[in-house]
Amino acid sequence: MKIGVLTSGGDCPGLNAVIRGAVLKGTEAYDMEFVGIRDGWKGLVEADFFPLTRRDVKGLSKVGGTILGTSRTNPYEGDRGGAENIAKTLYGHKLDGIIAIGGEGTLAAAQRLNNDGIPVLGVPKTIDNDLRATDYSFGFDTAVNIATDAMDRLRTTGDSHQRCMVAEVMGRHVGWIALHSGMAAGAHIICIPEVPLSLEEITEHVLAAAERGRAPLVVVAEGFKLKGQDEAYSDKGLDAFNRPRLGGISEVLAPLIEQATGIETRSTVLGHIQRGGAPSGFDRVLATRLGLHAADAVVDGAWGQMVAMQGTDIVRVPFTEALGELHTVPLARYEEAAALFG
Amino acid sequence: MKIGVLTSGGDCPGLNAVIRGAVLKGTEAYDMEFVGIRDGWKGLVEADFFPLTRRDVKGLSKVGGTILGTSRTNPYEGDRGGAENIAKTLYGHKLDGIIAIGGEGTLAAAQRLNNDGIPVLGVPKTIDNDLRATDYSFGFDTAVNIATDAMDRLRTTGDSHQRCMVAEVMGRHVGWIALHSGMAAGAHIICIPEVPLSLEEITEHVLAAAERGRAPLVVVAEGFKLKGQDEAYSDKGLDAFNRPRLGGISEVLAPLIEQATGIETRSTVLGHIQRGGAPSGFDRVLATRLGLHAADAVVDGAWGQMVAMQGTDIVRVPFTEALGELHTVPLARYEEAAALFG
Amino acid sequence: MKIGVLTSGGDCPGLNAVIRGAVLKGTEAYDMEFVGIRDGWKGLVEADFFPLTRRDVKGLSKVGGTILGTSRTNPYEGDRGGAENIAKTLYGHKLDGIIAIGGEGTLAAAQRLNNDGIPVLGVPKTIDNDLRATDYSFGFDTAVNIATDAMDRLRTTGDSHQRCMVAEVMGRHVGWIALHSGMAAGAHIICIPEVPLSLEEITEHVLAAAERGRAPLVVVAEGFKLKGQDEAYSDKGLDAFNRPRLGGISEVLAPLIEQATGIETRSTVLGHIQRGGAPSGFDRVLATRLGLHAADAVVDGAWGQMVAMQGTDIVRVPFTEALGELHTVPLARYEEAAALFG
Amino acid sequence: MKIGVLTSGGDCPGLNAVIRGAVLKGTEAYDMEFVGIRDGWKGLVEADFFPLTRRDVKGLSKVGGTILGTSRTNPYEGDRGGAENIAKTLYGHKLDGIIAIGGEGTLAAAQRLNNDGIPVLGVPKTIDNDLRATDYSFGFDTAVNIATDAMDRLRTTGDSHQRCMVAEVMGRHVGWIALHSGMAAGAHIICIPEVPLSLEEITEHVLAAAERGRAPLVVVAEGFKLKGQDEAYSDKGLDAFNRPRLGGISEVLAPLIEQATGIETRSTVLGHIQRGGAPSGFDRVLATRLGLHAADAVVDGAWGQMVAMQGTDIVRVPFTEALGELHTVPLARYEEAAALFG
Repeated sequence: MKIGVLTSGGDCPGLNAVIRGAVLKGTEAYDMEFVGIRDGWKGLVEADFFPLTRRDVKGLSKVGGTILGTSRTNPYEGDRGGAENIAKTLYGHKLDGIIAIGGEGTLAAAQRLNNDGIPVLGVPKTIDNDLRATDYSFGFDTAVNIATDAMDRLRTTGDSHQRCMVAEVMGRHVGWIALHSGMAAGAHIICIPEVPLSLEEITEHVLAAAERGRAPLVVVAEGFKLKGQDEAYSDKGLDAFNRPRLGGISEVLAPLIEQATGIETRSTVLGHIQRGGAPSGFDRVLATRLGLHAADAVVDGAWGQMVAMQGTDIVRVPFTEALGELHTVPLARYEEAAALFG
Repeated sequence: MKIGVLTSGGDCPGLNAVIRGAVLKGTEAYDMEFVGIRDGWKGLVEADFFPLTRRDVKGLSKVGGTILGTSRTNPYEGDRGGAENIAKTLYGHKLDGIIAIGGEGTLAAAQRLNNDGIPVLGVPKTIDNDLRATDYSFGFDTAVNIATDAMDRLRTTGDSHQRCMVAEVMGRHVGWIALHSGMAAGAHIICIPEVPLSLEEITEHVLAAAERGRAPLVVVAEGFKLKGQDEAYSDKGLDAFNRPRLGGISEVLAPLIEQATGIETRSTVLGHIQRGGAPSGFDRVLATRLGLHAADAVVDGAWGQMVAMQGTDIVRVPFTEALGELHTVPLARYEEAAALFG
Repeated sequence: MKIGVLTSGGDCPGLNAVIRGAVLKGTEAYDMEFVGIRDGWKGLVEADFFPLTRRDVKGLSKVGGTILGTSRTNPYEGDRGGAENIAKTLYGHKLDGIIAIGGEGTLAAAQRLNNDGIPVLGVPKTIDNDLRATDYSFGFDTAVNIATDAMDRLRTTGDSHQRCMVAEVMGRHVGWIALHSGMAAGAHIICIPEVPLSLEEITEHVLAAAERGRAPLVVVAEGFKLKGQDEAYSDKGLDAFNRPRLGGISEVLAPLIEQATGIETRSTVLGHIQRGGAPSGFDRVLATRLGLHAADAVVDGAWGQMVAMQGTDIVRVPFTEALGELHTVPLARYEEAAALFG
Repeated sequence: MKIGVLTSGGDCPGLNAVIRGAVLKGTEAYDMEFVGIRDGWKGLVEADFFPLTRRDVKGLSKVGGTILGTSRTNPYEGDRGGAENIAKTLYGHKLDGIIAIGGEGTLAAAQRLNNDGIPVLGVPKTIDNDLRATDYSFGFDTAVNIATDAMDRLRTTGDSHQRCMVAEVMGRHVGWIALHSGMAAGAHIICIPEVPLSLEEITEHVLAAAERGRAPLVVVAEGFKLKGQDEAYSDKGLDAFNRPRLGGISEVLAPLIEQATGIETRSTVLGHIQRGGAPSGFDRVLATRLGLHAADAVVDGAWGQMVAMQGTDIVRVPFTEALGELHTVPLARYEEAAALFG
């Protein structure tokens, strides 16, 4: 068998470990041949392929990023896109199928291609941990560690100055990174997209922490919105609200908290450092296992499915079950953490 | 309610996070009162208690070790030990029950005490991840990260000198740390207690790696034994075999590998650094959640059980189900990893 | 002798190690007594003192922040400020002098107080490394390590997407953190306050790196200004220029670079994480030594001086020599690094 | 000009950064050509060369180990060794000189070759920081950080069990790593080769720390010897003393301390993890600067010298001044640190 491998969407620690796992298992156990597809679906549409051998993946379990490159291209767009063109390309290059490593968007495209006759196997990749049908996705644990470590640092500065620190982490639609890193770092309030809070609900916890002599730590996911945020913006007439594009929600929240509590407040947007660099041990193991099982699944012809982690097992889940709805933080998990806010 | 908390057995990152979780949830949600019990069962037997308030647990989620102290005392030993004496002590101090945080031995004692009428709730603690009924135990992820990071360092030195590096990690009875850190670091062979190997089976992988131009990495759990190890020792007459007490199995293996392959070989015993210091994000979250749920379980009167992680949930498991047999590495997991040895 | 200790200005890893060093040496070797002064000069003006014993400083070498608290108050301001009032306070509390740990502003105030008859000894503290007469100041090495680690992460993401990454580090007036972290991380261009560059000079290096197949890394100190920045802003009419208050210079540069080169460009402001948390080994040693020598200097009556690092020695430097002009990056050091830009 | 580069002796973080610095400066600024010499002097004697271009050194500032390989071969040994043979090899390959990166032994060989007419420039490399004429050598700072981090972890375990922890670090002849990491980690006694101590002098500090309620931390360099160690061994008849080859001095000390104080004592030999892996920011900058200046020195024909760090400057020092006597810890520096032992 000859299989193409692509990575698509945003960067995520563990991508290279998946590639390595699939190539090692495929070449050694099944005598498969691999080609790398450059820059996600773009490389598939443009037939930008290169041989991917055991030698190419050596030492990759610890290397951040993806040796395949990535992009956010849609395989159905452009002159050369679409299932029919891609089928011809696969035929021309004697490719028996594709392993597509990516998030919700990538896997939705994979599902559509698979329905249109292109054999595609999915590997879930999301730094935000927003995919259903997998307990965790690789990259998430690394992001939580990086965010937690950053918050440990912010806290000592908060304590020294008796300041409120607002730390903004990734999570456009779901609050998993905020929930876990905030719990790990001892946040006094965690703000996630799933649970809108009013400014008063936030400052209540900020003030309570300050009254206990603590420097308040507010953790906020980038996708969090204040209750009635748009109205609030125009009512308060705060200049900050006219600048939503630059900077993040934490840069909006910090002056509001300072204004409401009288406590000096600083914000930090952790940004891209959360999604690059060497993966944690957990993510290397998870990503490697997903890669190993992807090779198995390909041999079994399990197209139209993705490999996923459930408990301590790697399982296969049809795209139809995995996609469509994001894996959000359940209210019970938020309330569990809220017991720590004090 | 008034509850005593103790930590028992070897050190483990996350102990303090469990204590903090239980105390915060118990005091804030349930108006419980806590006392710390010093140095494990020893403090229970000797009634060495101190008040444990919200203030005492502040900032603890990131702090390694245990503020309660720990020991390896058996609560049934000594003049003042045994269920009857302990029952009197609890009565005298108006304690309604005990949260015992510990491993197989600690929980076995907890089970026996509980059977003898002392209300005890367990929280599983094992750096080695050797307890059944919990997918992971806190401390394990931190140990894997420390070991993986150390192996990343050893590998560059192996590469520079074209040496074989043997890294010894914790795991007296089970090979989980070796399996995960070895997989994460790209080991060429992983040696665990569950899977005895002959020297030849090890050196085969060492030589194969060297032939591919790699510096071989051998990861070995402290409890690993060579097939027919005792016989081998006396046959070869190697001086190393007369020194089993000092140093670990890696210090036995390294000269054997060097002798058999002709490749310069060095061993490193990671030792105690694997079980101290700040917990990883994963372990902070897991330990905190276990603490939170321990307070819930106490309120529910779920004595004789332990809280545990299954999938992404925290559940309760009776001691009878949790104990008796260690959580070893299944052969399927070892074979999965073996696909990477090459 | 009875000595007050204060920390003033922004947070900096190593403050606690200085305090510990001074208290341990002073109490053990010289039988000195110490009082902590809360929140910098503010606590001195308000006589907000507390006993500072050996017990209070235990374990502090690795702890970020300052147990004394800090502020940016000027001791000459307010009703109770000024040398005369402070002299009365010292007399009333039987304090023989002050150890003031702080930066340019703090030490300038210390100098003025010393001239006005208050015995003050200085310890230089600046995350930016902008003080003359000391080769390095504690906190700087930690900041460089944090920034370097962050850039290592940004680079893998840059490589995966073939993006230009702009990393903004601290350094309002001097470019030391940018110079060292940029050199350590392999930056393709480093922008520091001491060396204004035009956008063209920056993009030339960005394009050269991209042509060699590298993902360009631009490191910029917060105080960097483009040549003729103000004019450029209005000429180009770029919306970004109307938002100088929110976000940093990197958020101005990134869209300009993207526009000029056609290469997708992302910015990250590292911000407060650079100045909090556990100090590096280097900073712990430097800060501890400064503390030890501060106690020696106090015993010798070396008021009006600061302790400083020169080569591997800790020396004493009169305030007059240490202050007045910032320690900027010499052109030769910038040109040395520029050889790497390619 | 065409220059060969070699690395010789033990692994050390920063070797690759030196190589990168020299090649980038040499090729870009001076149009020099480089060849890599494999495995130290061995590759020179065997003419094992390969082209070393800008492309080969990309991304190397953060990579541990050496892409050139290393060995402990003496260039004057073997049939093909000696200055005459090497001169012929250089002539045959049109090499104008050698940059030799190594420690005392390597540089002594470099000096001898240079005296025998082979143009050699030295770059000092020693993890132990035992070379004179350079304030610090690259690799040392990384080793101190690794050791300090490990000790931070050991301390929490010591505290939890009220144990004495003995941490053994590198330093066969000099105690710099022990001095700096011990100071950084708050050791209660530091044992270095330069200052022999009796067991009683050590246990005095161990007991004093325990009496203050601290878990004692003993830091020991591998080259430390007890006062009258050999006699003591035979007197006490301790089995441990018959096993000097396996394990380190800490494994000898730990049982002696436990026996003398009654405090449970554990030892950890940090070993090879101190000399591998990614260099710290400090070491990357130092190593890169040494590489840059090595290229300058070659162009200036400064053969028979080594580049070195003095204060914040990179200078040139003749081999005659740099070699012959090791850079030991001065008694004043030890006594400075001893003020912290308490």
